[in-house]
Amino acid sequence: MNEKLFSKHIELKNIKLNDPFWTNEQKLVRKEVIPYQYEALHDRIENAEKSYAVENFIKAGKIVKALKNGEDVPVYPADKWCYSDDNADPKAFHGWVFQDSDVYKWIEAAGYSLLNHPDDKLEEKADKIIDLVCGAQLDNGYLDTLYVINNRDEIFSNLKDFHELYCFGHLAEAAVSYYKATDKRKLLDAACRFADLICNTFGEDKIKGYGGHEIAEMALIKLYDVTGRKEYLDTAKFLIDERGKKPYYYDVVLGKTTVYDNYHYNQAHCEPRKQHEAVGHAVRGVYLYSGMADVAKRYGDDELYTACKKLIDNIINQKMYITGGIGSTVDGEAFSFNYDLPNDLAYSETCASIGLIFFARRMLEIEPNSEIADTVERALYNTVLSGMANDGKSFFYVNPLEVLPEASHKDSRKRHIKPVRQKWFGCACCPPNLARLISSIGEYCFTENEDTLFIHQFMGCEAETENADIKIVSSYAENGKVNIKVSPKKNFTFAVRIPAWCDNYKFSQPCEIRNGYAYFEIKTKAEINAEFEMQVKMIKCSNRVRANIGKIAVTRGPFVYCIEEADNGKNLQMIKINRCPEFRTDGDIIYAKGFREKDCDILYSEWKNPELEETKIKLIPYYKWGNRGENEMSVYINIL
Amino acid sequence: MNEKLFSKHIELKNIKLNDPFWTNEQKLVRKEVIPYQYEALHDRIENAEKSYAVENFIKAGKIVKALKNGEDVPVYPADKWCYSDDNADPKAFHGWVFQDSDVYKWIEAAGYSLLNHPDDKLEEKADKIIDLVCGAQLDNGYLDTLYVINNRDEIFSNLKDFHELYCFGHLAEAAVSYYKATDKRKLLDAACRFADLICNTFGEDKIKGYGGHEIAEMALIKLYDVTGRKEYLDTAKFLIDERGKKPYYYDVVLGKTTVYDNYHYNQAHCEPRKQHEAVGHAVRGVYLYSGMADVAKRYGDDELYTACKKLIDNIINQKMYITGGIGSTVDGEAFSFNYDLPNDLAYSETCASIGLIFFARRMLEIEPNSEIADTVERALYNTVLSGMANDGKSFFYVNPLEVLPEASHKDSRKRHIKPVRQKWFGCACCPPNLARLISSIGEYCFTENEDTLFIHQFMGCEAETENADIKIVSSYAENGKVNIKVSPKKNFTFAVRIPAWCDNYKFSQPCEIRNGYAYFEIKTKAEINAEFEMQVKMIKCSNRVRANIGKIAVTRGPFVYCIEEADNGKNLQMIKINRCPEFRTDGDIIYAKGFREKDCDILYSEWKNPELEETKIKLIPYYKWGNRGENEMSVYINIL
Repeated sequence: MNEKLFSKHIELKNIKLNDPFWTNEQKLVRKEVIPYQYEALHDRIENAEKSYAVENFIKAGKIVKALKNGEDVPVYPADKWCYSDDNADPKAFHGWVFQDSDVYKWIEAAGYSLLNHPDDKLEEKADKIIDLVCGAQLDNGYLDTLYVINNRDEIFSNLKDFHELYCFGHLAEAAVSYYKATDKRKLLDAACRFADLICNTFGEDKIKGYGGHEIAEMALIKLYDVTGRKEYLDTAKFLIDERGKKPYYYDVVLGKTTVYDNYHYNQAHCEPRKQHEAVGHAVRGVYLYSGMADVAKRYGDDELYTACKKLIDNIINQKMYITGGIGSTVDGEAFSFNYDLPNDLAYSETCASIGLIFFARRMLEIEPNSEIADTVERALYNTVLSGMANDGKSFFYVNPLEVLPEASHKDSRKRHIKPVRQKWFGCACCPPNLARLISSIGEYCFTENEDTLFIHQFMGCEAETENADIKIVSSYAENGKVNIKVSPKKNFTFAVRIPAWCDNYKFSQPCEIRNGYAYFEIKTKAEINAEFEMQVKMIKCSNRVRANIGKIAVTRGPFVYCIEEADNGKNLQMIKINRCPEFRTDGDIIYAKGFREKDCDILYSEWKNPELEETKIKLIPYYKWGNRGENEMSVYINIL
Repeated sequence: MNEKLFSKHIELKNIKLNDPFWTNEQKLVRKEVIPYQYEALHDRIENAEKSYAVENFIKAGKIVKALKNGEDVPVYPADKWCYSDDNADPKAFHGWVFQDSDVYKWIEAAGYSLLNHPDDKLEEKADKIIDLVCGAQLDNGYLDTLYVINNRDEIFSNLKDFHELYCFGHLAEAAVSYYKATDKRKLLDAACRFADLICNTFGEDKIKGYGGHEIAEMALIKLYDVTGRKEYLDTAKFLIDERGKKPYYYDVVLGKTTVYDNYHYNQAHCEPRKQHEAVGHAVRGVYLYSGMADVAKRYGDDELYTACKKLIDNIINQKMYITGGIGSTVDGEAFSFNYDLPNDLAYSETCASIGLIFFARRMLEIEPNSEIADTVERALYNTVLSGMANDGKSFFYVNPLEVLPEASHKDSRKRHIKPVRQKWFGCACCPPNLARLISSIGEYCFTENEDTLFIHQFMGCEAETENADIKIVSSYAENGKVNIKVSPKKNFTFAVRIPAWCDNYKFSQPCEIRNGYAYFEIKTKAEINAEFEMQVKMIKCSNRVRANIGKIAVTRGPFVYCIEEADNGKNLQMIKINRCPEFRTDGDIIYAKGFREKDCDILYSEWKNPELEETKIKLIPYYKWGNRGENEMSVYINIL
């Protein structure tokens, strides 16, 4: 590892986003998602599944008080993934084992939002929830309402299936966000007390366990970065190093013997530093890899970094949809084998693309890499945005590349493919994850070190960095144009990513092009106009991907496009795009020349040249699909 | 219904098969499958999962004796689908709930085999097994080892999930086969006693239930045809008429309330005579439809026949693979929605195609229909034959149209797709079903009525029919040539099916062509030479089938062809067949001109015309695939 290349992202408080495209998304999160989620956490949404999220903290708070008063406290089973009115005592924990994390994700998003949009009422709400959270913490620092309510004696007894370390991770991330936004330490202190307990519980000569759903690793690093407490860093490294060692911790503790490769799901099949292929539950995977990158950088751990590089390379070049979606099988919400990227069976969870962005940013902080920054863009402008409806009121968990509503309704193999976004989920991981990413999107624009400031994503903003004050006016999402005003604080190098999709770009200042970045030597105030010509392109997928033989996808700039039934009629598979489609754009709509094959209902007949009639194909950005009711959609289009 | 068109198949004892193609298949069954299965039923195969099949009858026999002696007999739970050494008392029932049926299918196949190939040793073995079976029958006629062994008080208490009526059906079919082969009545009498119990148990003012896995319907008809006992016919009709009536019998008895459409799996979502779309478990479906056709014919029930016509039309024209496979989803081993025929996810169970042939024959006995006879041929020469290895020693349960071994190993969605045939199955329904169909294949060649003899399948044989003695020398499977010598017993019409795949055919005698049959008026001895030119054809699948856009399949006569990795290298999806492929045949191999696209491992790149190199494509008959170790296979080929 070359420490000279190490960089940091710019703190959110130092970036004022004013990008027309992204402030609109942030506004949706601020005006729709955060308030709606607040109601959901309190189970005040009519006809929605109950979350029990806040209720659990209230129950746990009472238990904590009772314990302090030396009262007798009952015990309930802690043995399920989901507790409902049907299968749990009314006084026991309810909801999913990871339900606490929804509350934490909301606090985290609220924190980010408060930074740029101070809002007393929101802060008051957050403070109240934080009081509830802190009230549920045991004297020893432990904080997970499932075990606090149901059984204090079984704490940390099933790290594989239950989510204590996962909930801790979200608690820590929320605490850091809220502390940075408000300077209030209450939640941060609570998170540190839980972190201290974890550091005292896990380690050499202590419990050699690790969480079944990763996140604690990167969360401990966040706490370390804020507090400087080395034990947090060491414990993050311990959790990574211990993972996948044989005999498997889970086997030893849970009294099982793993056959074959059971722990691929948890990325615990072998030690992370020996992992070179992304496997298992995709969200868990990218959360682990994020932590690995964090630890690799802070320890200068080359071996761990090599694993990270192989993993991200494997994801980007063998396991990622053109939309930046990852996890191509519903079974385990997992990565499939290399080049297995079915369009109509995709899982491509919104959360997984968000996690990929987390991982990618950490990799960029180790070493600039335009391919990785391109990947952030790809995931962000397609799968992540697709996760939320145009009005911010409904969400996709799963982001398929081909949808036939009849199949979703009738074919159980496609039950996970929803043809329209849904209001809220019982297992509501994606909407709050979207809220926290979009509210903090500024953190993904820049990284900098002593002598270089990198711009990876082009969003209109005013940013105060160590090297310079930056003012960006961007219509990047619309036409690829970016105006950058740089007021340097000292001489430095300014590096501007050149998106891989762009063949023709222009910079108004002289620069040196190296490895996907344009480097400018900045000594005085400067203004750089960057123009990235946004050609409409036909993209071919590797012919190792069986699903896409004979098909192309259309892109324009960072956006992947798709065709929908609302514009192109039923049976999208009968549409064929011309090899010279003479693309025409109108705003963010693309028109192309093509043909429609005549419908043939005869199942088997002798082949003859198909009957085609000319048609105008209308394409819309992928992220906008599914906003006009249930209909067919396809990213890939047959080519004539 | 036009009763004048009604016909019967020719009894097996009146057909002596000598067809080179089919006697070889029968020999495999006789020499390999039946002996192997006999050992399997006795759990004498090394390294194979135990079947417990014969063991259960021995156990049940002891219980029956103990009951007769008034001894105390223990009770065990009867609440599982599969009982193993791990989850059952050693003295209780073991194996699958339908394990008895394996024994019955073996007896049935042995019976058919004995008809044409008397074999004292085989008959002796069968007699011994029949003694065991009969020894397990309760005094009241009941015979199902699960309940006889485990709990006599719970008989007929869960018709939906357990398989008493199913096992009865196979018992009856075995009994009829064995009786016809040997004139021995012992098993037939046992079956009739069980049938009597069923007739006394189910009906108006009795239990208004029906089996979750159909077959009893058509089996009762077989018993009726042999014994003439009207109550068997009436009960078959009752079971059909009662099915799917509301409130659902299963809901009433099992104390549940069905939501949505739960009983589609069992074809019990609505009354069979109102069913117009084939749904649910495919084997169950075609077994039910077979019974419906039987009952419709015998009662002259137009409404029921109309449902049968709509169902078979729906199967043939919307839900059948080109190989005659049905059931395109593994989930429930079921029919999917219309035109949903994925190649790589197919279920296409061997048993389901066998059941489709049962259904089709019954439809032909109501009314001649060359499309239905074509369907028998399609299923027989492709999916059914594919079910068994060239050496008769291993079997496919599932018959996919596209196989990538890596996917079968790594992608849990394709776990059911086996890249090579397997020795035997724990749930061994297909091999014994294959054995009974192939041993009785002669029954599918002809139907006749007073004035017309139909030949539907062209197999070399000597047949004694009511209208004539027939001698057929056939090289149909090789070159489409059939020589038929007819010695009439009276004036009659001889109708010869013209296969739909054939554009050029020649008959040596004058005839009238009508609805896919050539009609010959026979007054004296005659010899008819039929030549069906076997062109190699490129077949297009309806463009409503999304999986096959841009692809063709190759057929020659009754055979569907495929490409295998062993002949064409890896990555079959990169192969493209020429629009003018200049087919060349060599025996049953076909060569075609085509191209191979250059392998491209870059996941996403700007589209340009693909780089192609010329290649010779080698195709083999689909039924022969998977005989050269694990490798890729595809029926459909991309067309340039």
